[in-house]
Amino acid sequence: MAETQVRFGILGCADIARKVSRAIALASNATVTAIGSRSLDKAKAFASANNLPTDAKIYGSYEAVLDEPDVDAVYVPLPTSLHARWAVLAAQKKKHLLLEKPVALNAAEFDTIIEACESNGVQFMDGTMWMHHPRTAKMREFLSDKERFGQLKSIHSCFTFAVNSEFLKNDIRVKPDLDALGALGDVGWYAIRSILWVADYELPKTVTALHGPVFNEAGVILSCGGCLYWEDGQVATFYCSYLSNLTTDITAIGTKGTLHLHDFVIPFQEHEASFSAGTELGFNELVTAWVPQPSKHTITTHLPQEVLMVKEFASLVEGIKVKGSRPDKKWPTISRKTQLVLDAVKASIERGFEPIELGS
Amino acid sequence: MAETQVRFGILGCADIARKVSRAIALASNATVTAIGSRSLDKAKAFASANNLPTDAKIYGSYEAVLDEPDVDAVYVPLPTSLHARWAVLAAQKKKHLLLEKPVALNAAEFDTIIEACESNGVQFMDGTMWMHHPRTAKMREFLSDKERFGQLKSIHSCFTFAVNSEFLKNDIRVKPDLDALGALGDVGWYAIRSILWVADYELPKTVTALHGPVFNEAGVILSCGGCLYWEDGQVATFYCSYLSNLTTDITAIGTKGTLHLHDFVIPFQEHEASFSAGTELGFNELVTAWVPQPSKHTITTHLPQEVLMVKEFASLVEGIKVKGSRPDKKWPTISRKTQLVLDAVKASIERGFEPIELGS
Repeated sequence: MAETQVRFGILGCADIARKVSRAIALASNATVTAIGSRSLDKAKAFASANNLPTDAKIYGSYEAVLDEPDVDAVYVPLPTSLHARWAVLAAQKKKHLLLEKPVALNAAEFDTIIEACESNGVQFMDGTMWMHHPRTAKMREFLSDKERFGQLKSIHSCFTFAVNSEFLKNDIRVKPDLDALGALGDVGWYAIRSILWVADYELPKTVTALHGPVFNEAGVILSCGGCLYWEDGQVATFYCSYLSNLTTDITAIGTKGTLHLHDFVIPFQEHEASFSAGTELGFNELVTAWVPQPSKHTITTHLPQEVLMVKEFASLVEGIKVKGSRPDKKWPTISRKTQLVLDAVKASIERGFEPIELGS
Repeated sequence: MAETQVRFGILGCADIARKVSRAIALASNATVTAIGSRSLDKAKAFASANNLPTDAKIYGSYEAVLDEPDVDAVYVPLPTSLHARWAVLAAQKKKHLLLEKPVALNAAEFDTIIEACESNGVQFMDGTMWMHHPRTAKMREFLSDKERFGQLKSIHSCFTFAVNSEFLKNDIRVKPDLDALGALGDVGWYAIRSILWVADYELPKTVTALHGPVFNEAGVILSCGGCLYWEDGQVATFYCSYLSNLTTDITAIGTKGTLHLHDFVIPFQEHEASFSAGTELGFNELVTAWVPQPSKHTITTHLPQEVLMVKEFASLVEGIKVKGSRPDKKWPTISRKTQLVLDAVKASIERGFEPIELGS
């Protein structure tokens, strides 16, 4: 039986849409059937530069994509301040929603998106690609293994990259009217998500921002960090920045095991990714070396993580379309938790680094 | 010309003294000439089990070692609460001082040790072995290089290891009358030192403890962490624990470079050690892989780090003895800074996680 292809519309011509349109093309259960931009010329240029199918519809507006009957799902890489408007409208038009992160300007706004998705029976997923790499599942096995990892005790995560002066002046991610959350909403999203992922999505009880966040002249965050505390004693720290060399780390330490990786957001290589894991590590008798040492685990993948993301999303959409399944709630739930922690970091910064209690 | 040998006395038979007595034997400019314990039998057993030179004096007290004319320097691995008494007495007896960490119960107490060393013209050094590994010098070159590392922005360090129930009951490091600083004074010492080392020993302006430290019934810290903030915006976080799998990490991120290592305290192997360094790392055009990637640097060493520590210390002692040099102030200065930060973490915990301002 031939696989059903979920038909994607793309809203806007953001840089990241190049990668995701390639991913849709590479995913066997997905295809691009429409693209819309406020500028028809830009949409045409994007379609041609990115080898969209020749029969894909090209529109000079986002609305037209949402009104297109040959579109099942939309990929929305618009600036964060436009998410609520276009995501809600997409859901109302019964389009399944693959939305870039941060999903909204705050959790209350995200709730309007989720409500629209739920009442219209459409699937929601955010664009956090690394979640879909097979390495992530392999690391989850290690973290869930009481014999190899034990009980979680602490987590550290960071995502930093050094932007250039052009970015600092003109990128939408430093504009208060477009991406008001700045580095916290962009790179911080990944760091916070990775911490929640390690903690198996249990929300921390308290979140405190690190002192010394950096803002641009318009008040947008360029670097910041935070500490997360759970009821039963786990602690996590993170740091995110546009002003430091590219670094993407997760360290998770349990009573029995330790996990390290340094390329969690984008693997060093497209088709192969590693992590380091060690169980009951120790020193030799004279404390001059380690016995045992941590070991490196390498996972190969034919399809890169963004293709696996599209496949997973399209498969959920197909389930709804073809088999009448209910939308999967895992994905909007973890998006919301990520946004809640992000909001708490922002609130802590605004309140002079006070601890912010998170409701459940 | 034959190398002068600095003659060491060892105070006590602590486990760590086995490693250091081997290091003294392996250091070409050092030899053990005396050992003292409160129990003569224990001192004899230690001397025999650790192949001390057959003509080494064996005493049933610490005083006797300090009174021994054939001793130039003492290695003091006694419990922290005994440091001030025996270190000051050693200095007064003109014995140079290699003192285990934490150097004292607090900086004020350490100052009495330093004053005794200064007024008696003896060298002071603490027993932080990794400082002396050639890898450490190689990493310093990277961190100091404005082209490869740029300006320091953030640091994360941790040292955790999982102790057994016997340790939790009986080890001196969990006894309030012996090592009142617990895990903070032991493993936390290394984490804090590593942060200061990355920051080129510039003291932070403010130190805040992480929430959720764990104490034993006697009130001794078993796990804790902290955040350090510098005047010009650098931030550091650390975590230390007796309740988590062995993990020893340094991550240092600059505007242009990133340094990672996972075995900073004791290298995975005795004669070879690595670190990862990357400069101006970035993603490829489609953001699906890294170009360039960080690279691994491996340093071999014929002599393990504890031998290099003894050699360095003995060489300073020899300079004083033979050439009339002044004691080197670098080592007591960085010990004191480490202790100051450690004190601030403890004070922050005691004051409900308030930020503690550090004087200069």
